[in-house]
Amino acid sequence: MIRVGVNGYGTIGKRVADAVALQPDMELVGVAKTSPNAEAAAARQRGYGLYAPADYADRFERVPLDGTLEDLVESVDAVVDTTPSGIGAQNRPFYEEHDTPAVFQGGEGADVAEMSFVASETYEEAQNSETARVVSCNTTGLSRVLGPLDREYGVERARATLVRRGGDATQPNRGPINDSMPDPPAVPSHHGPDVQEVLPEVDVDTMAVKVPTTLMHLHAVNVSLESEPAAEAAAALLDEHPRVELVPGEAGVEGCAHLREAADDRGRPRGDVWENCIWDESVTVRDADLYFFLAIHQESDVVPENVDAIRALAGDADAAESVARTNEALGVGLDLLPEERQVEAGAD
Amino acid sequence: MIRVGVNGYGTIGKRVADAVALQPDMELVGVAKTSPNAEAAAARQRGYGLYAPADYADRFERVPLDGTLEDLVESVDAVVDTTPSGIGAQNRPFYEEHDTPAVFQGGEGADVAEMSFVASETYEEAQNSETARVVSCNTTGLSRVLGPLDREYGVERARATLVRRGGDATQPNRGPINDSMPDPPAVPSHHGPDVQEVLPEVDVDTMAVKVPTTLMHLHAVNVSLESEPAAEAAAALLDEHPRVELVPGEAGVEGCAHLREAADDRGRPRGDVWENCIWDESVTVRDADLYFFLAIHQESDVVPENVDAIRALAGDADAAESVARTNEALGVGLDLLPEERQVEAGAD
Repeated sequence: MIRVGVNGYGTIGKRVADAVALQPDMELVGVAKTSPNAEAAAARQRGYGLYAPADYADRFERVPLDGTLEDLVESVDAVVDTTPSGIGAQNRPFYEEHDTPAVFQGGEGADVAEMSFVASETYEEAQNSETARVVSCNTTGLSRVLGPLDREYGVERARATLVRRGGDATQPNRGPINDSMPDPPAVPSHHGPDVQEVLPEVDVDTMAVKVPTTLMHLHAVNVSLESEPAAEAAAALLDEHPRVELVPGEAGVEGCAHLREAADDRGRPRGDVWENCIWDESVTVRDADLYFFLAIHQESDVVPENVDAIRALAGDADAAESVARTNEALGVGLDLLPEERQVEAGAD
Repeated sequence: MIRVGVNGYGTIGKRVADAVALQPDMELVGVAKTSPNAEAAAARQRGYGLYAPADYADRFERVPLDGTLEDLVESVDAVVDTTPSGIGAQNRPFYEEHDTPAVFQGGEGADVAEMSFVASETYEEAQNSETARVVSCNTTGLSRVLGPLDREYGVERARATLVRRGGDATQPNRGPINDSMPDPPAVPSHHGPDVQEVLPEVDVDTMAVKVPTTLMHLHAVNVSLESEPAAEAAAALLDEHPRVELVPGEAGVEGCAHLREAADDRGRPRGDVWENCIWDESVTVRDADLYFFLAIHQESDVVPENVDAIRALAGDADAAESVARTNEALGVGLDLLPEERQVEAGAD
């Protein structure tokens, strides 16, 4: 069993903790927080060990602690840092002092860890590292699709417009409220260079726009390829990725809200969509230029990657085993419609 | 004087009527409506002649009419049809019966008129026509930028992601309310082919996303060019267009709301932004690929085009004269900041 601690219990931390608790080869020792709030109470209700940095321990009166963050980090085989952006970098020396391998999040700079992690692309590199950074939701989604496309057809240049949700539903202080804003106006946004931390050989430019939604990001992707596939072949290749899902037209999925609804209808925790979803109808090829729409659930697509990053740092499964185990334990695969029946040519 | 009638007095019609009334070489004979509502009352308050199709005349009790639509069409040198999409095509034979040149809107198919109109691109073609279609707001904006780029550098391929406002502020029945939706999921959206009605030689693909905003559309534009300009040169070229405006970073214009606010602050009717606005900071060139963000006010960027289309069909001004006259009468040119002072090398 890989003993795991999760430092931070916000949007990503709570999801990673739940995902770790479901893995047959992992034990969630506990989670660390700084506030004894409703989320902390929920962690205890779930039976998770609760820890806090020593300086914060005396805040925890109504929600009792099991120990300090140091106790947690000392007793685990790997820690996942899901603290707010920038705090992870401050925490790294602390994990190193305790010789505890650490997984960081994409809000940190690339230099927070030895490598940038996407399971299908850089798992092996993480196996030789003590620290890994799971890249951001958008970078994860783009890497999942650009990696296979580059291997199969060669990516001459990729260009993506990221239509970003202004904030999560629990971030009422964010916006905009009625605007589409270049975010940032400069080109490229940080996402393109971040994809190149995972896929250094892929040439990609990104432009980001912020809009007043909370549910998911939506990317309009263009990829100039070195060889020209049929659209059906490109769609099939993308669909082969264990965390990419094609959305068939017949599914009636008109936007991001329908994807979240499908996740809810399948009983998923928090309506999470771990897969990056591509509208089948959007996959178009014209003169070696490939186009498609890609939906990305900002709160959850990195969750299975965090689980795999733990195994890469502290376990002995290879990439394919880890991805299969994570997907199986979580139930990755929305299966929006049953597979098309293979209609056999009739005898009459 | 060119005597003008406007059939339809909705979002576009009311703006075109106001713009025509401001032209020194035009006389607005009147506008035609089917409902005696608050907008009809506003037309009378502005002193515009008010007309209705004969079948609708008996509805107009509280808001008196000056005559029937037929009276209007019979007495003018040109009619601008701003009726709802699809009605324009039904009206065309009626205008032809009266030998009245007609301007249609982009909601109609390209075959509603002899040609598709953008003043800087196809004015001369309209001078030899009896009917013209002013293309949609998005197509107008893309044509204004792609035409000059193609002439100066050669457009190998253009790709635009259109982040579309879900509805105008007066369309409470539209949406989405909290979603980013491929609209349509199929690629290209109709905008690319529509640009090619204006610029047949320009290769352009468009993808459209609908978001919960009302103020403006925002395009993320990529243009693969045949020759590679410096970003500053490309920005200067775009800025030369009489209806394109560069947004300097120092202007503090963060999104579409700021553009509308700037129009309001300059006393413009309805906060209209007739210019297509490009964030200066976004104009980027990398390996002959040009990128920029382009904002498009869906309710108004076609208004000056309608005025020019009237002159092309029924007047004798050439393109440059007409554009200059229209811009002068309306006050086109947001002038977000004073021109940079040319700093001379000082003598000390």
